[in-house]
Amino acid sequence: MATLSTQGYKGTRDLYPDDKRVQNYIFSTWRNVAESFGYEEYGAPLLEPLEVYAAKSGQELVSDQTYQFTDRGGRNVAIRPEMTPTISRMVAARQQELGYPARLYNIANFMRYERPQRGREREFWQLNADVFGVAGIEADAEIIRMADAIMRAFGATHKMYTIRVNNRDLINFMMAEYLKLDAVQAQLMIKLFDRKDKITHEQFRDQAVDIFGDDAAETGLRKIAKLVSATSMAELPKEITDSDAVKDIQQLFTLLSESNITNAKFDISLMRGFDYYTGMVFEVFDNHPDNNRAMFGGGRYDGLVGLFGGQPVPTVGMAPGATTTEDFLRSHELLPKLVSTTDIFVIVLGDTLRAAEKVAASLRKEGVNVAVDISGRKIDKQIKSAVKINVPYLLFIGEQEVSNETYRLKDIATETETEASVERIVTMVRDYRRKHDKDEF
Amino acid sequence: MATLSTQGYKGTRDLYPDDKRVQNYIFSTWRNVAESFGYEEYGAPLLEPLEVYAAKSGQELVSDQTYQFTDRGGRNVAIRPEMTPTISRMVAARQQELGYPARLYNIANFMRYERPQRGREREFWQLNADVFGVAGIEADAEIIRMADAIMRAFGATHKMYTIRVNNRDLINFMMAEYLKLDAVQAQLMIKLFDRKDKITHEQFRDQAVDIFGDDAAETGLRKIAKLVSATSMAELPKEITDSDAVKDIQQLFTLLSESNITNAKFDISLMRGFDYYTGMVFEVFDNHPDNNRAMFGGGRYDGLVGLFGGQPVPTVGMAPGATTTEDFLRSHELLPKLVSTTDIFVIVLGDTLRAAEKVAASLRKEGVNVAVDISGRKIDKQIKSAVKINVPYLLFIGEQEVSNETYRLKDIATETETEASVERIVTMVRDYRRKHDKDEF
Repeated sequence: MATLSTQGYKGTRDLYPDDKRVQNYIFSTWRNVAESFGYEEYGAPLLEPLEVYAAKSGQELVSDQTYQFTDRGGRNVAIRPEMTPTISRMVAARQQELGYPARLYNIANFMRYERPQRGREREFWQLNADVFGVAGIEADAEIIRMADAIMRAFGATHKMYTIRVNNRDLINFMMAEYLKLDAVQAQLMIKLFDRKDKITHEQFRDQAVDIFGDDAAETGLRKIAKLVSATSMAELPKEITDSDAVKDIQQLFTLLSESNITNAKFDISLMRGFDYYTGMVFEVFDNHPDNNRAMFGGGRYDGLVGLFGGQPVPTVGMAPGATTTEDFLRSHELLPKLVSTTDIFVIVLGDTLRAAEKVAASLRKEGVNVAVDISGRKIDKQIKSAVKINVPYLLFIGEQEVSNETYRLKDIATETETEASVERIVTMVRDYRRKHDKDEF
Repeated sequence: MATLSTQGYKGTRDLYPDDKRVQNYIFSTWRNVAESFGYEEYGAPLLEPLEVYAAKSGQELVSDQTYQFTDRGGRNVAIRPEMTPTISRMVAARQQELGYPARLYNIANFMRYERPQRGREREFWQLNADVFGVAGIEADAEIIRMADAIMRAFGATHKMYTIRVNNRDLINFMMAEYLKLDAVQAQLMIKLFDRKDKITHEQFRDQAVDIFGDDAAETGLRKIAKLVSATSMAELPKEITDSDAVKDIQQLFTLLSESNITNAKFDISLMRGFDYYTGMVFEVFDNHPDNNRAMFGGGRYDGLVGLFGGQPVPTVGMAPGATTTEDFLRSHELLPKLVSTTDIFVIVLGDTLRAAEKVAASLRKEGVNVAVDISGRKIDKQIKSAVKINVPYLLFIGEQEVSNETYRLKDIATETETEASVERIVTMVRDYRRKHDKDEF
């Protein structure tokens, strides 16, 4: 038989322990912040009926990017490309039983068929955090506060990122009343704005002319130029700043500044791709010159739960991704040094394996994570393994150590060796974990 | 547009926070035990090229049970139905860089197209723990010890479950030398034994006759009867107990009894379905009368890494499932009472939302998980929400509380109310978490 390739499927990652530690650090930071705001974890299916996405996720996602197929029973399904439709379905299914505001979070993998590139993989991991049942801007403020708290928990300062905020009501008003576009034109213009940073100025101009039509193009382009050149709300045309949607945004900014979120900025050109947004939309933008781009975002989608029957439920949510977060942490040098979850690697000297296993069992009982070298190899090979695994401590167990019930514990980083009993080893590992922000026991 | 169904995809589960807590309890128990034995977490792709499974997973799994499809680029892929081929591929890809014994674990979801029934879903979650690079029975013993440690960590006693052990070398010897079957017959007979508990005695007999052929059937059946009636190794025919494979098993049982594993039993009829096993195989069997069945298992597969090129790497592993574990815990009433990760639900009295948000922010800074009712609803409705969410504490914040900087904390279970400062609240929650075995802060 031919040898199988060691290459995984394109756009997916094999996470060895070194890489998985980084992902786990990101997951646990997300988890801690989400839970601190009272969000509770849920779990959701990997597959959904395809029509769940066809409804509102946006055409590009469904027709070009979903992993869709027909199962052995003839059902059309997709591997989830996002969580929003699923959690909306779940809330609709238990609408009466849930306590509101229902705060729900989840950390899961998703798949989209896209060209893999920096910060984008076909299989990717996201936090989804959503609050259900609050129509007021307090919910919008909470989600943005939580996005900010996540960035702060990673050690980021406000200079490193900007929170861009806009509102779909305002966008709709702007499209209809200011740019005088009909519904079809408005839809196209929103998509064009959404691609603005990915295309050239000329491409934007040409496509905008197509949308306006020849007669209206000149006036339209002038109006757009006025919009995008505005650096604050005060510089926007008066017909826009007089609208109700602007008042909502202003109140939201008051709440955010009361929470000391000084890096939030109104951005009239921010759209967000999904069709289901109905109110506030926002985006966390990385200010690092090497990595200048949107990291993640979210917004209000009041109409999605209602698509599954029952009453409509106002909702705000967001979805940070693990890959963009990792890129951010690396660019800003915020990633802490992460070592193995294994505390001790036992080096077995001679014929003492059974005794070593007993010592290991005693240490495990006290909460210490212990790997025993059961390979029977030479000592230098055992030590090399421990170093590769990136374990903080070696524990040498030979005949003399066994008869004294005192073992040699070596701190690999400091190269210091201590003769210690099981009790003493437990204390030393506990101190080490506390000092290195690892889970205590 | 027609209303979308709230029903998820068949054979998958929507895990609301109540259900997710149970799953998280299982995951964290697995994680703690695996890490205590020095296993490190890895992450792996959701999809694999189909041929990875075609090689060794067994025909039924690949042709009837995989979720396979062709991606938009024409690649034949499958949603992983198991982890073993993937982790073997990953080890082969980094064979030189890894430190041995390489102990690796992962908790992930898998999909198989099967008829959903008790303890079996189409999407299911498993722990996979494998040790690479040890040819000796010390590795077999370690994996079984870890399986036992997991059961004990869930509070199970040895009466509740049996660990059944066999060995593929012995099985092969038995098929060839004792039952005188050729390779094709042996393969069929192993599959028949594997289905033994799922078919009637007559079905077993008829199919065994087919395999032996008419001439050899009578002798063959008599020999099988002798095998399965043996209740200990001593009762087996001498030609089997004289084989080398039996010596390995006996040594393994010595190691297990030294670790106080008194519920391990040799079972000559245990086969395990996968084609890739090459040595020891085992199964943890639930002894509860309502739930009498195999819960999970594992074994040695020394040939799989080598299929991906490079040197062969001896390997032993196991894969407990979350659903069968949950059934076990419920049958034996071992599931602890699990409450929300949210410690406090803030009831906002009157127009004090902004003040309440500030109190919540101070509590969060100290590690307390706080949900604020931002709905602006009547007090009784807010309280009802907190009870539905299953939060241990209510915190009442009105104008008087704000001006005194003392808030009313109500323990929902004991119905006691305490007037407390932020500092005092932090202490009370910390004590509560310690008492209830929740993560401390």
